[in-house]
Amino acid sequence: MSILLISQSRDMAPYREAMLKTDPNLDIEIWPNIKNKERVTFAVAWNHPGNVFGGYPNLKAVSSLGAGADHLLNDTSIGADVALCRVVAPSLAAQMSDYCLTWIYNIMRKTIPYYEQQKTGGWKMLPARSKDEMKIGVMGMGEIGRYVAEKIRDAGFQVNGWSRSRKEIPGITSYTQDETGEFLAATNTLICLLPHTAETENILDLELFKKLQKPGWIINVGRGAHLEEDDLIYALDMNILEGAVLDVFKEEPLPESHLFRGRRNIIITPHIAAVTQPRDVTDQLIDNYKRSLSGMKLLNPVSRENGY
Amino acid sequence: MSILLISQSRDMAPYREAMLKTDPNLDIEIWPNIKNKERVTFAVAWNHPGNVFGGYPNLKAVSSLGAGADHLLNDTSIGADVALCRVVAPSLAAQMSDYCLTWIYNIMRKTIPYYEQQKTGGWKMLPARSKDEMKIGVMGMGEIGRYVAEKIRDAGFQVNGWSRSRKEIPGITSYTQDETGEFLAATNTLICLLPHTAETENILDLELFKKLQKPGWIINVGRGAHLEEDDLIYALDMNILEGAVLDVFKEEPLPESHLFRGRRNIIITPHIAAVTQPRDVTDQLIDNYKRSLSGMKLLNPVSRENGY
Repeated sequence: MSILLISQSRDMAPYREAMLKTDPNLDIEIWPNIKNKERVTFAVAWNHPGNVFGGYPNLKAVSSLGAGADHLLNDTSIGADVALCRVVAPSLAAQMSDYCLTWIYNIMRKTIPYYEQQKTGGWKMLPARSKDEMKIGVMGMGEIGRYVAEKIRDAGFQVNGWSRSRKEIPGITSYTQDETGEFLAATNTLICLLPHTAETENILDLELFKKLQKPGWIINVGRGAHLEEDDLIYALDMNILEGAVLDVFKEEPLPESHLFRGRRNIIITPHIAAVTQPRDVTDQLIDNYKRSLSGMKLLNPVSRENGY
Repeated sequence: MSILLISQSRDMAPYREAMLKTDPNLDIEIWPNIKNKERVTFAVAWNHPGNVFGGYPNLKAVSSLGAGADHLLNDTSIGADVALCRVVAPSLAAQMSDYCLTWIYNIMRKTIPYYEQQKTGGWKMLPARSKDEMKIGVMGMGEIGRYVAEKIRDAGFQVNGWSRSRKEIPGITSYTQDETGEFLAATNTLICLLPHTAETENILDLELFKKLQKPGWIINVGRGAHLEEDDLIYALDMNILEGAVLDVFKEEPLPESHLFRGRRNIIITPHIAAVTQPRDVTDQLIDNYKRSLSGMKLLNPVSRENGY
């Protein structure tokens, strides 16, 4: 039995090293240099090449290396009998809330306009936004979304949450799918932390932007597939939105010629809002590997039915 | 009796308006259009022209419009029998803590390097700093300093405080003047919130920078006079410091030709970390005016002996 680590974009050697440090008896292969595909029973995948799981007859389970699992759900080469799971690392939620708070503060305190002014030699006080003028909305109140919403609330901001079912969280106003209009009317800084499903694809579109309270900002830390890119450009050009902070994109790396680049009201970061560190996930990867071998239920399973 | 509002840099009309709304019987003059200097018994000053208080024989008290009062203490035209005071606005401390948190997050999450990378079309993950690698130190644990330190602690950062006398604040390590070396060795992100006195002038100098833990950052939100400007340039050039965030300067507005401009590792904001809003201070200004008329002790007095 062996474990396969597979990613096109991330160096998997540090993960292998950390896992071997915990259990030196593990047999761990790193794609694309695989000695024996038949021995692979467990795979850990992140931004992996599509449909490469055909040649692994004994594959029992595949784990995402992050909170998102759409790259596994969309891969038709993973047999229906293969169990899917993901990692839940407290540090992912903490990194995510820090990223969101960084940009909430920057929007409020006009960091980028001041930085641009610095370059031109200016010295002008820009109109300030007070804390109670920032109305934060979090779409997607799963484990990470809820954590992020609570941390933003703890920092003294008003927070609304939007989710399928109503959530009772102290100090956070909960809206359900039937109350989307009210949620958007009460929100001017929208954080997308939804899972990627057929229902949520392109959910950040012109119709939504128009309902958002002004001055409207989008912070997308969910998936690039959530954002209707042309609608964002249009909404910014028409002053329907004031700006956007994007960490995820339909195509990553974002092409150098992409329309989003070089616009002052679009902030781009290279998918770094929350990065799984080896020390955060070693134990749960090994645990799920051993569970899959003995036919036990996996930790943090991904449901093909729910799509996350 | 009348009140004089005097500032070279700030429009005082909104303060006059707010005070008259609270008490329409007040007589309030705005410098330089003063009808009757002899009637002025109370002045409110912010960045006022030096030594203009000679012609006010009945002046009883002068209030700063901010937390700092060195512009009053240094003005030799204010008689020794004139009482000095300043404003204490909770919103000033809140704005200050938000400004400091904004930049702590930006230093941790490398906001400016990512923003510069965006402009060049790059897509590179920059080495991350984790929250527990940020060691925040607050110099000056007065009312604002203590509030700022507590808010930074509440956001999950390690915080050290430096002050004349030891402070017992849960979760904040207190250092006194005799322990400056230990304080700096335990700190890599130094926030200056000291009052400006002879003792604190140029306290942010090369000797201090060398003792700071690396990678060292200075956030100066105290007074420009605290910073030895040439030493900062030298320390950045020699990689003794990694960067600086400056909201206050020896000369304001910062001259267009100043050495600090155009350096990527110096962030400049135009003295906007905490701006006194009329609604925040109207009541206490009127209160101190009436106290001064009836010979009562002023609220938030400034001591000529302590220098703050």
